Amino acid sequence: MDKGAQVLARHKELKGKIAVELKDDLDTQDKLSIYYTPGVASVSSYVAEHPDEARDYTWLNNSVAVISDGSAVLGLGDIGPYGALPVMEGKAMLFKHFAGIDAVPIVLNVHTADEIVTAVQAIAPSFGGINLEDIAAPVCFEVEDRIKATVPIPVMHDDQHGTAVVVLAGLINAMKVTKRTLTDCRIVCVGAGAAGTAIMKLLNLYASPEILAVDSRGIISSARADLNNDKYSLLKFTNKADLHGSIADALRGADVFIGVSKAGLLTTDMVALMAKDPIIFAMANPTPEIMPEAAISAGAAIIATGRSDFPNQVNNALAFPGIFRGALDNHVAKITDQHKIAAAEVIAALVKSPTHNKIIPSVLEKRLVPAIAKIIT
Amino acid sequence: MDKGAQVLARHKELKGKIAVELKDDLDTQDKLSIYYTPGVASVSSYVAEHPDEARDYTWLNNSVAVISDGSAVLGLGDIGPYGALPVMEGKAMLFKHFAGIDAVPIVLNVHTADEIVTAVQAIAPSFGGINLEDIAAPVCFEVEDRIKATVPIPVMHDDQHGTAVVVLAGLINAMKVTKRTLTDCRIVCVGAGAAGTAIMKLLNLYASPEILAVDSRGIISSARADLNNDKYSLLKFTNKADLHGSIADALRGADVFIGVSKAGLLTTDMVALMAKDPIIFAMANPTPEIMPEAAISAGAAIIATGRSDFPNQVNNALAFPGIFRGALDNHVAKITDQHKIAAAEVIAALVKSPTHNKIIPSVLEKRLVPAIAKIIT
Repeated sequence: MDKGAQVLARHKELKGKIAVELKDDLDTQDKLSIYYTPGVASVSSYVAEHPDEARDYTWLNNSVAVISDGSAVLGLGDIGPYGALPVMEGKAMLFKHFAGIDAVPIVLNVHTADEIVTAVQAIAPSFGGINLEDIAAPVCFEVEDRIKATVPIPVMHDDQHGTAVVVLAGLINAMKVTKRTLTDCRIVCVGAGAAGTAIMKLLNLYASPEILAVDSRGIISSARADLNNDKYSLLKFTNKADLHGSIADALRGADVFIGVSKAGLLTTDMVALMAKDPIIFAMANPTPEIMPEAAISAGAAIIATGRSDFPNQVNNALAFPGIFRGALDNHVAKITDQHKIAAAEVIAALVKSPTHNKIIPSVLEKRLVPAIAKIIT
Repeated sequence: MDKGAQVLARHKELKGKIAVELKDDLDTQDKLSIYYTPGVASVSSYVAEHPDEARDYTWLNNSVAVISDGSAVLGLGDIGPYGALPVMEGKAMLFKHFAGIDAVPIVLNVHTADEIVTAVQAIAPSFGGINLEDIAAPVCFEVEDRIKATVPIPVMHDDQHGTAVVVLAGLINAMKVTKRTLTDCRIVCVGAGAAGTAIMKLLNLYASPEILAVDSRGIISSARADLNNDKYSLLKFTNKADLHGSIADALRGADVFIGVSKAGLLTTDMVALMAKDPIIFAMANPTPEIMPEAAISAGAAIIATGRSDFPNQVNNALAFPGIFRGALDNHVAKITDQHKIAAAEVIAALVKSPTHNKIIPSVLEKRLVPAIAKIIT
C-alpha cells in the first residue's frame, strides 16, 4: 500500500478521530438528576440570569469550534464540507493534543460571506472560541472581520494569522542569524491570498519593511486593472515605488522571499537575483516553491518550508494552540494584532541561539503553549 | 446547602460536563502526518469524491448535534442559548452514557423558524444526526418539518417524539393491565404544545381512539376563534363530536388523562368524573398535574409521571438513545412514524408482565437500546 492508501485505511478503521467523553459517570440516579433533569434547572436558571458566568458552569471555558466551508482545503481547493471534515477532525486533534482544548469540527453547507457569517453568529453561543479554517480568499477576510465584530468570543482565521505569527517569529530569528534589521529589509511575498495577505499586514505593522506583493499575474501595482478590493488595499503599504513586472523583477536585490504559492515556482536563477545571503520561506504544501538543497546551492542563507522533514518548519501548530489556550484562560474576547506580535516574539525567543538550521522551535517544544498563553491577555 | 446550590456547586467544580477525546494518540510525527497534513489530504480527496462514504472515514457515523434555541427549556421557558447550554450538555451525557453516541451541544442565538432552519441546514454536514431540543411550539413544528425535508440525516425533535413514543409504550401496557383496547378509549390530552401535539398524532395514527385536546382555554373545538394553525389542525382527528367546554367537561367518562401541562391541574374531583379505573399520565415537571397518592385515592387504576421517585416514569431517555443508535447504525435517513410506533412496541414488550406499578421499563434496562436500535431500519 502506498502512503495515501495507508492513511485512508487507517481512517476507515478508526471511523472518526475524535469522540465525546463524559467528565463524570452517569452511574446513579442521583447523578442523572444532578447533571440532567430536574437538578440542571437550577444551573440553567442561574446561567440565564448571569450569562457572563456561563463559562464557569459549562464547557464554554474550554471549547473551540473549528469551522470551515470547505472552499480552500489544504492544497485541494473547494472540495466542500464533507471533504473538509477529515481535516477539521485532525485540527480538533491538534487542539486537544497541544493545548487540552475541546474542539468540535463544524463544516458548513454554505459558501457566501453572508451565509457563513449568519451561520457562525447563530451557533456562536455554543463555544468559547472560533477557529476559522480553510475558507478561500477573499471571502475569508470579510467573514472574519464581520464575525469578530459581532460575537463576544475570540475568533481567528488560522490560515491567515497562525501562519503570519509563525512567519514573523521565524523572520525575527532569521534577522539575528543574518545580522539584518527587519525594517531595512526588502521583502517579496509571492501569493496574496489568505496567508500572504495576513503575513504582509503583520510584517508591515511590526517593522514597516519594504514589501512587494506578487500574485500569479506579477507584482501588485497601481497599473493592474484586475485587482479585487483586498488586493488593491495592499497597495496602501506595499510597493511604494509602484514597480511593475514579474516575480524575477520583484526579487532583484530582495532580502527575503516569502512564498505561499505553488510548488517549484522559485528557480535557482531567481534566487541568484536576490541580495547576498537571502532568506527564503518556501511554504507551498506539500512541495515547496524551491527545495532546500537547491535554495542553498543558489546562495540562500536560510531556507524554511512547511515540511517536517526539513529544518525550519513553519507550522501553524506553533501558534494557534497557545493563542487559544491564552484567550480562553484569560477571558480574552478579541485576538488582536498586538497578541499576534507578542506570540511571534515568544515563539522566536524560545530558540535561545538561532542558527541557519534552527530559527523556529519544534512543535514538540513543551514550553510553547504556556509561554504564548501567558501573554494573550 | 440545598439541592439547587449543590447542583450549581458541582457544575462550577466540573466546568463543563463533556470533553473531546482523541481516538488515537498524536505522539509521533508519523501520526501527525497521518491524521493531519499532509496525509489527511488523501482522505479529504477521497471523501470529496465519495460524499456518501464520509461516514466511513469521519465521526459522522456516531455523532449527533443536540440543538436548541433556548426558547422552551425544561419548565423555565425562553431562557436563551446560554441558559439552555447546561441542559444540552446534560443531554449529550445521556447520548453517550445510554447509546455510546458522541453528541455535541449546539445552542442558537436565533429564534425565528427561518433563522433556526437556516442555521441547522448550514451546519448539518458536520453531524450524523440532529436532535432538536427545547424549542417552543408552534415554531418547533415548522422547524422540524423543514429540516427533515432538506437534510439527508435523521432529525428528531425529542420533546415531541421521544415523549410520544414513551407515552404510547406506557399506554400499550396500561391497556393490558386494565383490559382495554386503545381504539375504544376516550383520551383527554391536556396541553397542546410540542409534546401534547406529538402524543395525540401518534395515538391517532396507532389506534384512532377518541381524543379531546385541551389547552389552557379549554377543549379545542371549532367554536374557538383563538387557535393557531397547528392547534386548528388537531381538529382533523380530535373532538369529532365538536364538544365545547372546560377540562372537567372533557374528562367526563374519559378512560385516559394525558397531562403535559402544569403542576396540580388535575383535581381528585376531576378524576372522579372519569370512567372506572381511569389511566392517568401526569407528566408536568417537576411537579405532576396530580400526585400519585391523590390520583389513586380518587380511583385511578394507573398513574404515570415524569419523575424517577414514583413508579411508571415516562422518560424520553427510554426512546431517543435507541432510536438514534439505530438510525446511525442502519444508515436511516429519516425517522418515520412507523419507526416511532415500532420503538413504542419494543419498549412496551420489554415489560414482560405489566402491572399497575410497572407499565414502563426502567431507563437502566440494558436491553432497551439494542432492542430499539434493531428495529430502526
